[in-house]
Amino acid sequence: MPTQAHMKAALQAYIDGFNADDPDAIMALFADNAVIEDPVGSPLKSRAEFDAFIRQGVKFGARLALAAPIRGSHANHAAMVFTVTFVQNGVRYTTNSTDVMAFDATGRIVRMDGFWGPSDVTVS
Amino acid sequence: MPTQAHMKAALQAYIDGFNADDPDAIMALFADNAVIEDPVGSPLKSRAEFDAFIRQGVKFGARLALAAPIRGSHANHAAMVFTVTFVQNGVRYTTNSTDVMAFDATGRIVRMDGFWGPSDVTVS
Repeated sequence: MPTQAHMKAALQAYIDGFNADDPDAIMALFADNAVIEDPVGSPLKSRAEFDAFIRQGVKFGARLALAAPIRGSHANHAAMVFTVTFVQNGVRYTTNSTDVMAFDATGRIVRMDGFWGPSDVTVS
Repeated sequence: MPTQAHMKAALQAYIDGFNADDPDAIMALFADNAVIEDPVGSPLKSRAEFDAFIRQGVKFGARLALAAPIRGSHANHAAMVFTVTFVQNGVRYTTNSTDVMAFDATGRIVRMDGFWGPSDVTVS
């Protein structure tokens, strides 16, 4: 099982990857068989589908800001709460999200669940 | 499916129940068949086991403070990030947690996952 420090560093690297416009750094955190449900309640994305999703986010200039310290667990999960802001067609979207990541034995993310709903998005 | 507003209000009521020393108000949020994994990585608790856990927390004077706005989802989940503080044998424990709740069709919590690990607890 990866250490708590490893998992927390990976979640921070996910944040940092967006803020550095570096989709490759983000995707390097994920296992080949990773599945992603973001937002929770939408169809599961494969790693390849998530790769396209991430690159679109980077294209829109997504910026992520942690809202509280990253949490670990007593197992292979870690969680973080953040706000993501991006601009699409001149409209600024700000979303409050909580992401939960599960890690495999090699320390890569095998599952991500992004908890946010319509009421967590503001438009300006 | 319960509304986003209903789920967010339930999570706030969970916070408020601790801060009012009212375990009955907390437990009224949970379905009879609820299962709780708090912390994630520990054995699942039944509703009855969780009831005892909650009453012990209230006995220790647990106080919960939200660290960011409660998040919903596009389904039957909501999530919140908070800090819980309690005193046991003269020692103050402060834990950073993220709780994810799943709701049944009647609007009660059927599953709770509490994400926190040893590195999320400070002692003073």
